[in-house]
Formats: sequence, structure tokens, C-alpha cells
Amino acid sequence: MATITKVDDPADPRIDDYRDLTHSDRRPDRPGGRGLVIAEGVVVVRRLLDSPYPLRSLLGVPRRLAELSDDLAGVDVPAFEADAHTMATAVGFHLNRGVLAVADRAPEPDPAELLRGARVVAVLEGVNDHENLGSLFRNAAALGVDAVLLGPRCSDPLYRRSVRVSMGHVLRVPFAPLTGPWPGALDVLRDNGFRVAALTPAAEATPIGAAGLVGERVALLLGAEGPGLTPEALAAADLRVRIPMATGVDSLNVATAAAVAFHAVAAP
Amino acid sequence: MATITKVDDPADPRIDDYRDLTHSDRRPDRPGGRGLVIAEGVVVVRRLLDSPYPLRSLLGVPRRLAELSDDLAGVDVPAFEADAHTMATAVGFHLNRGVLAVADRAPEPDPAELLRGARVVAVLEGVNDHENLGSLFRNAAALGVDAVLLGPRCSDPLYRRSVRVSMGHVLRVPFAPLTGPWPGALDVLRDNGFRVAALTPAAEATPIGAAGLVGERVALLLGAEGPGLTPEALAAADLRVRIPMATGVDSLNVATAAAVAFHAVAAP
Repeated sequence: MATITKVDDPADPRIDDYRDLTHSDRRPDRPGGRGLVIAEGVVVVRRLLDSPYPLRSLLGVPRRLAELSDDLAGVDVPAFEADAHTMATAVGFHLNRGVLAVADRAPEPDPAELLRGARVVAVLEGVNDHENLGSLFRNAAALGVDAVLLGPRCSDPLYRRSVRVSMGHVLRVPFAPLTGPWPGALDVLRDNGFRVAALTPAAEATPIGAAGLVGERVALLLGAEGPGLTPEALAAADLRVRIPMATGVDSLNVATAAAVAFHAVAAP
Repeated sequence: MATITKVDDPADPRIDDYRDLTHSDRRPDRPGGRGLVIAEGVVVVRRLLDSPYPLRSLLGVPRRLAELSDDLAGVDVPAFEADAHTMATAVGFHLNRGVLAVADRAPEPDPAELLRGARVVAVLEGVNDHENLGSLFRNAAALGVDAVLLGPRCSDPLYRRSVRVSMGHVLRVPFAPLTGPWPGALDVLRDNGFRVAALTPAAEATPIGAAGLVGERVALLLGAEGPGLTPEALAAADLRVRIPMATGVDSLNVATAAAVAFHAVAAP
């Protein structure tokens, strides 16, 4: 059981991990200079407890820590109890969810390892908006996507805002960077039996529902809202698919387009 | 061509329609007490110009008004030109899109009239979040939904934030309130040859892709994220459909679920 320790002083060094959270995404003292993994609210904290990320501590108001007491039964890290004012002063803003947890990052898995046993994966190029990335992970989790691979120019899924918008699902859906030359790095997908289907609004692409992808091993290649996929990425795909759209309408939001595509290739 | 008039004084009464926009959604002086229709940015202003809403005026920085000059060729309302500071002072916040237009509301069409010639419509119950409602209209426009009917407890699609999040598509997709007793008011759909399909996460519902709705006249009945549809609305539907989801995952965002459903019933 986590030991509960009361903290009255917002400057208490034991809660330094929670200090100035709006500026917490750069941590030059941590490996890679990236921030810790931060979960906000009971639901997301539970997902962090179930994740592979090594928990460091929790900080919450008494009511929220009590709500988590069963979840914390087997957990051996400090839990700091504070009132809402002390928390807000340390964190830098009022937290209406009343509880936070922090964890260390974990080594990122190898893409080939994630692909073993997977049927549908998403491969992202240039998805650099933290909220869109978080929503995309939420949709991936809901619609049974087995893994997400991050090509060039993607944001960090473990950025605090992505974790929150994803409702903690970035902690659940396995992901890995796809390193090496781009788009040559896509070969790992073909080598593992996946067809790489690039999503594009281009009229000559096949409507995704008619592309014969249901039940197949498929890697959906998705670009950012606005610019979309680069010509190089489009050319490297095995096929190009589109979501049929009304004329004169701009594209869908990337996380929404991803959801439509995930559903369209899901097992029946 | 709209007459361009320079305005230097943020208190100028000619730009009163633009005053304190963050508080502009209550207009006791207007019919029904509701705010004017407000479009922000070149793209959304263009959609307002193409809409049935009677334009009152525009307010913009010189560069943005110049960008709209072709669109304003046949438009006979005043266009007020101001610098960014004057605009920000009048409006109450800095507008990075540089142009606004206001229009009067228009009489709402009769639901039966909207259904004539429609194939896919969305019927909403309790969708009371302005951003979700705006996103839903954006998705409806992109995915070829012909009309939106608003059941009880829905927000006002013409609220400023909904217009913005929809990227102006609430000005394009026809909508009407579905008045009268609920859910009895759904009869207008059946009377017009529509099958009413309620979207629910319930396990016993039919996966939407297997419900035989492609190419049919279908009314998708959608409830708010969280509570979902009321038991009365679910009972009044002709069939219940679901988006297959991974176990242990909360529902999708309502606008995202709507997008998946719209695509699933779209004509091939």
C-alpha cells in the first residue's frame, strides 16, 4: 500500500515532480530531456497504474486518494496528500480533477516486436499537434488498433496534454518511433506481412470500404491535418485509400479521419 | 460591392454588433433573445456569404477585407475596416483571424421539408456541448449528411463557438428543431420513409456495418457523450446499432462516433 504523507507547504521538495506543470515538458535533468509521464484525474491515474511506466509518486486531495485506495493496495510509492490550494500553488494552476501521478518513461519497444501479433496498426507522419495525437490514441484504443508507429515530425505522445486528451489511452496503446531513413523505414511493415495503406483525400484513391482491407493485416499511414502525407510517403505505400467526402468540404480532423479508417478496416 | 468605411474608435456605435463577443450569445434585443450569427476568419465568412442568413456587416483588418474583395462584389452591406488593436478593443479579445461578419438568424425550416430529398440525416438528443455540436456538423458536411434535426436539450448550432469549431459548416448543413412530444416527434421520420437507427454502445445492438443501412434512407439517432440516449429514445428507434469497440474503453467522443456512423451508412 502506498504510504500517505501530508504536505502543507507548496514548496516542499518532495513534490518537485509536480512543480509548474505548464512548463514541465522540458526536463533537462531527465534522460532525453523529456518530461516525466503525468496523469491527471482518477481515470487516467488508474491507466497509469496499469501501464508499463514506473510510478514515482501521487499527489492528491484526500477525497481523490480515497477513491483510489483499492488501486493503490499493491503500490509501493509515496502518495502525497494536500489540499486543493497547496496543490494549485505547486502545480501552477487549479486542478479540478484533484489527483496527479507521475511516472518515469520506459524504453520504447522495437517496432518489429510491436508488429508481432498485431493486425491493424497506425503509422503517423508529421502529426505534430498534441491534442490531435491524444485524440487519435483514444480512437485507436476504442477501435481496436494494436499499435501506433511514429514516423518523422510527430509529437511526443507522452506530453502531458496528449495524455490528458487521450484519456490515458497513450498509456495503453503500445507505440514506438519508426527510425531510420523515411519512407524506407516502412519496409519493416511489409517485412512483417502488413499492407501499407496511405489515407489521402485524392480522388483517384480507392474508397477505404472497397479496398479489401477488412480482416487483413494493415498499416494505415496517416499524415497531419492540412498538409497531409508527403509525396514520398504516398509513393512508398502499397495502396492509397480515401474516405468518400462531399465536394467542397475541407478534410476531416486527422483524429476523426483516423477513427473512420480504423472502423472501416476493423474485423467484422 | 460592399462599401468600405474606416473605423478608428472602438466605441463607434456602427460596430456595436461586434462588441464584447465573449458575452454576445444573449441578445435580449433580438428575436428569441439569441445572438446574431457571427463568422470568424476568411473561410467561415465565405460560408456565411453563401448561406441563407441575411448579412448585416463585416469588420476586418485591411488585408483580410482585401482577400475577400471578390466575394464581396455583389454584397450590399457595410464593411468596416479597422486595425487589429481597434478590433480587439471592440470585440474584447485579440482575433488572430482578422475578419468577422455578422448576420441575422433566419426562420428555421420545417423538419418535413428538410427530409424531402434527404437520404441520411442525424437526429440529436441532448447534445449540449457547443464544441461537440460544431464538430458534429463539420463531420456531417464532410460525410454527406443531408440534414440535422435537433431533439430536446441540444445546444444552439449558431452559437459563436459552434460556428467556429464547425469551420462554418453549421451555416451549410440544413438543420431544424424537432418540436412536439419526445420521442413521439420521431414519427415525422418514419412518415417520410426513414428508418430510425439509434447509436448505442449496448452489446446487444447490431454492429452498424452489418445493419443493412448502406444506401437506405436512415436517420441516425445520437445522444450526448457520457449519458448517451435516454431509454425512451432508444425504445422509440426502429433498430439499435453500435460501433464495435475494444473492451474496457470508454465511448468515443460523440462527434467522432457520429463520423464513424455517417461513413458506415454512406452510399458506396
